[in-house]
Amino acid sequence: MPPPDEFAAPHPQLQQDSHWLGTLGNCQLLLHRNASLPWFILVPAGSYTGIEQLPDADAQHVLRLVKHLSHFISSRYHSEKMNIASIGNLVDQLHIHVIGRRRDDCCWPLPIWGHLEHHGSYSSAEIVDLSLALEKRLHLIRRQ
Amino acid sequence: MPPPDEFAAPHPQLQQDSHWLGTLGNCQLLLHRNASLPWFILVPAGSYTGIEQLPDADAQHVLRLVKHLSHFISSRYHSEKMNIASIGNLVDQLHIHVIGRRRDDCCWPLPIWGHLEHHGSYSSAEIVDLSLALEKRLHLIRRQ
Repeated sequence: MPPPDEFAAPHPQLQQDSHWLGTLGNCQLLLHRNASLPWFILVPAGSYTGIEQLPDADAQHVLRLVKHLSHFISSRYHSEKMNIASIGNLVDQLHIHVIGRRRDDCCWPLPIWGHLEHHGSYSSAEIVDLSLALEKRLHLIRRQ
Repeated sequence: MPPPDEFAAPHPQLQQDSHWLGTLGNCQLLLHRNASLPWFILVPAGSYTGIEQLPDADAQHVLRLVKHLSHFISSRYHSEKMNIASIGNLVDQLHIHVIGRRRDDCCWPLPIWGHLEHHGSYSSAEIVDLSLALEKRLHLIRRQ
């Protein structure tokens, strides 16, 4: 099923690269299919291509979500560092990467973009388990 | 001269990589020495290692600075896209990259981290000119 009406569909490249988990406030939450790192992507509602275009109230809301999601990731994956970025050179639709990093991960200390050679996949059970945890901890509204 | 007392000195690696331009609100503003792209770095005051640790009011202030700085960069360098990121795998002190990108730049469409092979330098006159523009447009407080 597509996401709720108020959200534009994620860019086809994001759809190809990610699992759609649900919505968190004014964002859709995606999980990158590469399971070698906890790599989440927030897609704010609206037709924006950069953080600097977001109205102040929306930007502050997104920032709070980034913070809550970061704490969730740190706790669940014992991440030592968060890599948070809005790049979008290839996908114009505004999206924000929130990635948990550890000194023993497969790509440390490099940023993952263009450097992540490992690949892992999530099982359906893992995605359900993760979605339930996000629903409980961050009030994720899951796909119906 | 060191930055004002309320700011910790930038991490030695940041000092080595950047020109210190001044302070913007609760941040120090650095300019990466590699002039092949307009690459600025904001260093929020306080002993933080991640955006998610910033108190809400400070985080919102930093977000406004990111927005103002992005508009400044877009206007001055005709940037088509902003790359905004907090990574810090090598430098623990919280710092936020704000980089103007263009489809004709030397690294497009790759993110610059680990992919930027070109190098250019700023002249002293260019740094003074840039600092004056930042003082006028964003109320940068320059090094005394």
